Amino acid sequence: MTSPRADRSVLILAGGRGERFWPWSRPERPKQLLPLAGGGRTLLAATLERALTLADRERILILTARDLVGAVRAECPGVPVVGEPVARNTAAAVGAAAAWFRARGARSFAVLPADHLIERLPAFTADLETAFAVAAREPVLLTFGVPVAAVETNFGYVQRAEKVGERLYRVASFKEKPDHATAERYVASGEYLWNSGMFVWGVTTFLDALETNRPGLGRPLRALSWEGGEAGFERALEPVFPALESISVDYAVLERASNVLVLEASFDWDDLGSWSAWARRQPKDAHGNVLFGEAVALDCERCVVVSEDREAPAAAMGLRDMVVVHTRRGTLACRLEDSDQVRRVTEAVRARGAR
Amino acid sequence: MTSPRADRSVLILAGGRGERFWPWSRPERPKQLLPLAGGGRTLLAATLERALTLADRERILILTARDLVGAVRAECPGVPVVGEPVARNTAAAVGAAAAWFRARGARSFAVLPADHLIERLPAFTADLETAFAVAAREPVLLTFGVPVAAVETNFGYVQRAEKVGERLYRVASFKEKPDHATAERYVASGEYLWNSGMFVWGVTTFLDALETNRPGLGRPLRALSWEGGEAGFERALEPVFPALESISVDYAVLERASNVLVLEASFDWDDLGSWSAWARRQPKDAHGNVLFGEAVALDCERCVVVSEDREAPAAAMGLRDMVVVHTRRGTLACRLEDSDQVRRVTEAVRARGAR
Repeated sequence: MTSPRADRSVLILAGGRGERFWPWSRPERPKQLLPLAGGGRTLLAATLERALTLADRERILILTARDLVGAVRAECPGVPVVGEPVARNTAAAVGAAAAWFRARGARSFAVLPADHLIERLPAFTADLETAFAVAAREPVLLTFGVPVAAVETNFGYVQRAEKVGERLYRVASFKEKPDHATAERYVASGEYLWNSGMFVWGVTTFLDALETNRPGLGRPLRALSWEGGEAGFERALEPVFPALESISVDYAVLERASNVLVLEASFDWDDLGSWSAWARRQPKDAHGNVLFGEAVALDCERCVVVSEDREAPAAAMGLRDMVVVHTRRGTLACRLEDSDQVRRVTEAVRARGAR
Repeated sequence: MTSPRADRSVLILAGGRGERFWPWSRPERPKQLLPLAGGGRTLLAATLERALTLADRERILILTARDLVGAVRAECPGVPVVGEPVARNTAAAVGAAAAWFRARGARSFAVLPADHLIERLPAFTADLETAFAVAAREPVLLTFGVPVAAVETNFGYVQRAEKVGERLYRVASFKEKPDHATAERYVASGEYLWNSGMFVWGVTTFLDALETNRPGLGRPLRALSWEGGEAGFERALEPVFPALESISVDYAVLERASNVLVLEASFDWDDLGSWSAWARRQPKDAHGNVLFGEAVALDCERCVVVSEDREAPAAAMGLRDMVVVHTRRGTLACRLEDSDQVRRVTEAVRARGAR
């Protein structure tokens, strides 16, 4: 059974406030709007590029924060963009999108976070096509599991159970970000995949699952009605959203439903959770340094040096395995291996009353 | 023999472009205009404070670069400030100042660089009074030698000869910045003092010495004539200065003259040649960090973290013995022990076409 392109939609989740690239990222320019995707493209633009291999522009929906709508529209011309009245995590966002897609006649949709990096586009498209075909055939919730390439404590994991098709498995369990020893055990067992946070499912299948597992979310979102396009939909969300539970779609639905399958991805994937994760994929100079923009590195090895400001260089001298980032809003210097703790810096900065 | 206060003048040399505090220092705000003197004061303001213990405000002269005159006047209200038409090093500057002071009836003057740090003010004043008294009595060129407190390769040295008074010696030789082994030998010998670059001498004594040793400098400067105050003097310098040899007063006069004495200073002294030299004298937090302005240091030890920009913090995490400086014009990150090589950074930045 095939899945006609016109039946499909894609939801891009672009509401994150990712602070892990502070000071480059900031509330009004979070991670998905940074040019982290290579070739100067933002992660959002690269996500849209992937989405367009699956569905036509007008069948895509981007959900984001209201104050980011302008910046998101500028990156994604011609794509419907809706600003959530308040942030309510992914279960509410996906439920609202399901209502939007149902009203537009879609039968199934993919959910793509806007701030992940995937480079092998043909493999991505092929895997998503496979998932759409499965979802057209069966009322299942499909998630994508990425073959583990390293012991990684910054990702969630999916434990595979019974094989039900090519690279397709039932799910034994979902696991939170593990500690190092646990992650080693997961990797050694061969039973686990990284949880990519990407999904494909039927519109009705999802709304049913949401209503069954989280009626407080499923009922009001299924009952949404509105006139017109994005503006009308935004108005319809306004009285509903603030009262919704703030919970991830993983917790609300996937970890409770019995009809969940995981497709082992053939594409590469990274959620770029830190400067270090980003640097791993960047072109390097002869000394292993990643230099972005107005960056000067003298006698440096394996450093990340970043400034987007043409008038204000970031300069590092005599350093090893460091991150040095200059922006107009601040400077960060830390060891590359500590770059997954940047949140501690943003908290300290906030505590000072600056940003 | 005493030295009446009205007979004395003080020249403050404030024309330097010190780049060693890049990115804090920059051409339009060099080292002497940075708040490096403690209590938020600039080095220039602190130098003026010292000068005022020796001479009245109108008997002081500040020589600087023409484009810095405004900034210097703002720091030193009521003090004559003259902008040199072009930079011609210290021999020309001191010679011009001698002509200025002679026209105003001074018999002797002190020369104080504007970008050094001296904290023990009473000792400074007492030593300078001693020097003025000697200069009033004899036609000598007095320099101040600072007792060596460490093996230091960033200072010049003065070798003492015969003792001619209390803490007062003839000079055997002047030495350039030595390498480490040579500096160790100097320190072990007990014969050497650090060359502070500060002087006291009679107006005529200096002009005579300059004309004898460097007639190409001494004659045109001695012959200067002008009407009125700073503006008239600046106009008189205009046709003369560009043709003058660019040479330091040490080379031009002190290393050649036979009437040079060195007074062993009882005051502390530092030329603050690097971030590291500055940090040594700053108050520290419990982990030995120097935090200036909007500075955040998490798990850092013995770091220097600086941002003057209230909207843009400099944040360091997990670092040891590092300098991290944010300004609107750029960011520097390097090891504290490499901070005397910041010039390499400014050269690399200039080579990129930024500043």
